[in-house]
Amino acid sequence: MTGKVFLIGAGPGDPELMTMRAVRMLGAADVVVYDRLVSDDIMAMVPEGARLIGVGKAPQFHSVPQDRINEILLEEALAGYVVARLKGGDPLIFGRGSEEAAYLAAHGVETEYAPGITAAQGVASATGVPLTHRGLATSVQYVTGHRQADQPLDLDWKRLANPDTTLVVYMGVANIGQIAVGLMTEGLPESTPVMAVAESTTPREKRLISRLDSIAADVRDAGLQAPVLFFIGKVVSMYRDQLSTEHVPQMAPELAVAAHG
Amino acid sequence: MTGKVFLIGAGPGDPELMTMRAVRMLGAADVVVYDRLVSDDIMAMVPEGARLIGVGKAPQFHSVPQDRINEILLEEALAGYVVARLKGGDPLIFGRGSEEAAYLAAHGVETEYAPGITAAQGVASATGVPLTHRGLATSVQYVTGHRQADQPLDLDWKRLANPDTTLVVYMGVANIGQIAVGLMTEGLPESTPVMAVAESTTPREKRLISRLDSIAADVRDAGLQAPVLFFIGKVVSMYRDQLSTEHVPQMAPELAVAAHG
Repeated sequence: MTGKVFLIGAGPGDPELMTMRAVRMLGAADVVVYDRLVSDDIMAMVPEGARLIGVGKAPQFHSVPQDRINEILLEEALAGYVVARLKGGDPLIFGRGSEEAAYLAAHGVETEYAPGITAAQGVASATGVPLTHRGLATSVQYVTGHRQADQPLDLDWKRLANPDTTLVVYMGVANIGQIAVGLMTEGLPESTPVMAVAESTTPREKRLISRLDSIAADVRDAGLQAPVLFFIGKVVSMYRDQLSTEHVPQMAPELAVAAHG
Repeated sequence: MTGKVFLIGAGPGDPELMTMRAVRMLGAADVVVYDRLVSDDIMAMVPEGARLIGVGKAPQFHSVPQDRINEILLEEALAGYVVARLKGGDPLIFGRGSEEAAYLAAHGVETEYAPGITAAQGVASATGVPLTHRGLATSVQYVTGHRQADQPLDLDWKRLANPDTTLVVYMGVANIGQIAVGLMTEGLPESTPVMAVAESTTPREKRLISRLDSIAADVRDAGLQAPVLFFIGKVVSMYRDQLSTEHVPQMAPELAVAAHG
């Protein structure tokens, strides 16, 4: 009897942001194959007796190569187990879930997805900064600011520099300077507001409000560490601290860091 | 005692795709202010005794104007009630949640968000078509294909015509012909695969696989009705029916419609 693999989006970190489907699938698992970005609170929901296999250190540095992860999933499913492949965010947004599904399907193993709240949505709901808003952003785009070690950052600045879009950059902390310059060169105003959120929805979360011409220096000065998510666009002017009903009075160009417990 | 307003994303329709936070907030409601796009199965989760106020017919045609919705939320909160503002998808992606939150904050009423699985994610997980995939799409963009009745469709075709992005068009069924022509004019290949999904995650769901130069005719011939979500980009070549492990053998240019129960 072949098992099956559930490709589960665990969301941004808070277990309450998991879908009910993700909770159900995780609860049915014999084996849980998990990434480092899955929070401790979510790992605490793994059913008693399930076997744990850790395969990732960070999105940009897999301690276990993707090919080997694919093999582990296949081996466990062929051994008859129900496998929960647990990932941060959504498995189909920068999550490589479809690579694993394609490999498993080619070997006759059934997969099923649980979508997850992606980091952009988690940050939006926690900060009150919308992804779209009438008059500020008619669309939203998610890009990665990271490339493999041996490849250049090859982003299409002309297409990304759209003043009517909210641009969300995943995994961009190492390259935010280059990203900001690229966008300004293609016409985004230097004053375009930018929000950086490090380790969002964890007790170590840090938020930084800046603008395109100063974000790189501000991130460096604040010592923000990956994972950091960037929101670039006019919607950032709507930032408010969700913990109160106060609006941040000014999108000041200088550094503003708020730590949230 | 002033109440509060929970701005809740109900997800794409299947109650199992709600987050646990959304379920908790809905369960705490005295009053539920809901859009038509919220499914019957989710409405069945409204707590006994909660008062229901329907305010929307469809995303492009509000039976109650947004200003009046804002007032209703404020009136109910000021009367001391816990108000669940229940929306399809995610309140901060084409959901106008931030407009409601800003209005309520300006009147001293506290709001809190529950993010939701947006339609693009629901369709991706149900069809197996990823939003990003190595070698096929390094980014994803959500746009609306709809504008107010008195305004032209004003999309930036040059920036949208990116062969390395998955373009997801919400509310685009009326304008898909114009959208396809705009993208081809700016250089997207005519053979770019396109998937249209009508009434996703409902028993009436219909899927159509086509390509950029024939999608408009195919949608018309199939009689697809709003709401329809379009995926445009190379990732559509990964379409497989989630109900089996079979891949669709060909992305044939001719019409292929699959109805799912």
